[in-house]
Amino acid sequence: MNRLSQLLNIKHPIIQAGMVWCSGWELAAASSKAGILGTIGAGSMYPEVLRSHISKCKAARETNFAVNLPLLYPQIEEHIKTILEQEVPVVITSAGNPRKWTSELKSKGVIVGHVVSSKKFALKAQDAGVDFIVAEGFEAGGHNGREETTTMCLIPEVADAIEIPLAAAGGIADARSMIAAMVLGADGVQIGSRFVASKESSAHDNFKSSVVQANEGQTELTLKELTPVRLLEGGFLYAVREAYANDASAETLKELLGRGRAKKGMFEGDLEEGELEIGQVSSRIDKIMSVEDIVKEIISDYQRMNPQGLGARFQLA
Amino acid sequence: MNRLSQLLNIKHPIIQAGMVWCSGWELAAASSKAGILGTIGAGSMYPEVLRSHISKCKAARETNFAVNLPLLYPQIEEHIKTILEQEVPVVITSAGNPRKWTSELKSKGVIVGHVVSSKKFALKAQDAGVDFIVAEGFEAGGHNGREETTTMCLIPEVADAIEIPLAAAGGIADARSMIAAMVLGADGVQIGSRFVASKESSAHDNFKSSVVQANEGQTELTLKELTPVRLLEGGFLYAVREAYANDASAETLKELLGRGRAKKGMFEGDLEEGELEIGQVSSRIDKIMSVEDIVKEIISDYQRMNPQGLGARFQLA
Repeated sequence: MNRLSQLLNIKHPIIQAGMVWCSGWELAAASSKAGILGTIGAGSMYPEVLRSHISKCKAARETNFAVNLPLLYPQIEEHIKTILEQEVPVVITSAGNPRKWTSELKSKGVIVGHVVSSKKFALKAQDAGVDFIVAEGFEAGGHNGREETTTMCLIPEVADAIEIPLAAAGGIADARSMIAAMVLGADGVQIGSRFVASKESSAHDNFKSSVVQANEGQTELTLKELTPVRLLEGGFLYAVREAYANDASAETLKELLGRGRAKKGMFEGDLEEGELEIGQVSSRIDKIMSVEDIVKEIISDYQRMNPQGLGARFQLA
Repeated sequence: MNRLSQLLNIKHPIIQAGMVWCSGWELAAASSKAGILGTIGAGSMYPEVLRSHISKCKAARETNFAVNLPLLYPQIEEHIKTILEQEVPVVITSAGNPRKWTSELKSKGVIVGHVVSSKKFALKAQDAGVDFIVAEGFEAGGHNGREETTTMCLIPEVADAIEIPLAAAGGIADARSMIAAMVLGADGVQIGSRFVASKESSAHDNFKSSVVQANEGQTELTLKELTPVRLLEGGFLYAVREAYANDASAETLKELLGRGRAKKGMFEGDLEEGELEIGQVSSRIDKIMSVEDIVKEIISDYQRMNPQGLGARFQLA
């Protein structure tokens, strides 16, 4: 019996990460159809956009799905209202204090997970009553913790500290990284970058192509004076590096970042001006595939590697 | 059959990392007695000191042992001469171009490994004729690569690219991290931080205690303008952080670093003024143990987790 699969009522203990500009209802529904937890990324959606994505996902999905909710989102009350009205079964919160909304969501029957980057915050989230933890290492794409603890070091720390189910994130894209994460103590995994490069992701084709072409060493965790974010090489990251070379202040970096760069890069495909958030594991992603084929490949490789030799915890269901 | 164990003629595919100020002949000999590859760290030794450590290690060891040789070491010709005269069976080179010395060493029957932090340098080292690769992730202690690729992402990249045996380093301290690294594609592992906190390491007791007390998030990869190095929190790292807060130039940082800080911290136990090089996995190390007990614990946990279910590559011998 797999604790994460059971809790989330999914076939395989895999969460498709909620990601700004990449994970709309098409990706979440395809993931849900493939037997994993599909997740709508609410961080890049206006309230009415989220409402529409949830409706479409509910109509199309087959098993459970989730909404990822950055807790610092300015119109969070409206998002929470939509989530409750539409009876979203699972919410994964991130970037903020889980104490604020967990009780409210749970009292309405929502299963709540929280994304952390350290043992300390995992324990705080557990204390706040969340049902499961997503622990995300330094190698993960997008916004990231300040501790810089890698998945290899973070997962055993968190697994030993908490009682509730744990999904590992950061550096996971295939069966071997999934098994490695589970050997380290996770009950399952959250996969982001690989699904950015899926057919059903709402990422622009230019961005998908650049993910497939990315080599090792071509992402960087940067803008630490603002909010640390892992970006793929491209015009904007080069501009950021030049700013650092010129001893730019936090204020200058903030001006350089401006507004709307993530949309411009990931959704509109502007590889020169846009912000391209992706994980280190992009170097391991070589093909744009359908979500169904990605999940099939991971699960069949997982079975072939025969991890049941490692014990009952490695069962997928 | 395990390729790394066979190549290095050791019982278990574990390399005790060569580390400045921590890995003298006592640690290397104890490791060799425990069935793993003991390694003398030559980077902090004058030629006559290295000669003496090799002699003592040869007298005390039981199976194979190695010398770790940073290729940028100023008196490298003398070190090479000593290594060849004393018939050191294995040399692990790092921090420099393996093309320079590999042929010479191999022509004298020395088995040569090289430490890398990227796939690109792994391929270059293989082309230079080395017998095995140590691939070291961002989480590792001490001097580190600029790519910042974590063990989780680096090992599959390197394993798929090279033909020769591969040891994973960075974040490895116990059976589960060892198995995880092998699931990712490594033939074995190199362990550093855990052996710093061994009875036989030449690290000062103050430093060993601080490693045992270290919590997650208390190391940092810093001084990137000079040579990136992962340090444990302490007086010197606080001073470095303050310098960065004051927009210190590379020149100022170099002056702040000065000379002899690594010896002062790790060997003399000055936790205020000294440089304390350690990996992120220090947070997972809770006890100072003998090398024999550390290896016994790792191997018995490895057997208990039953990774033979994962196939023949997981055999230890």
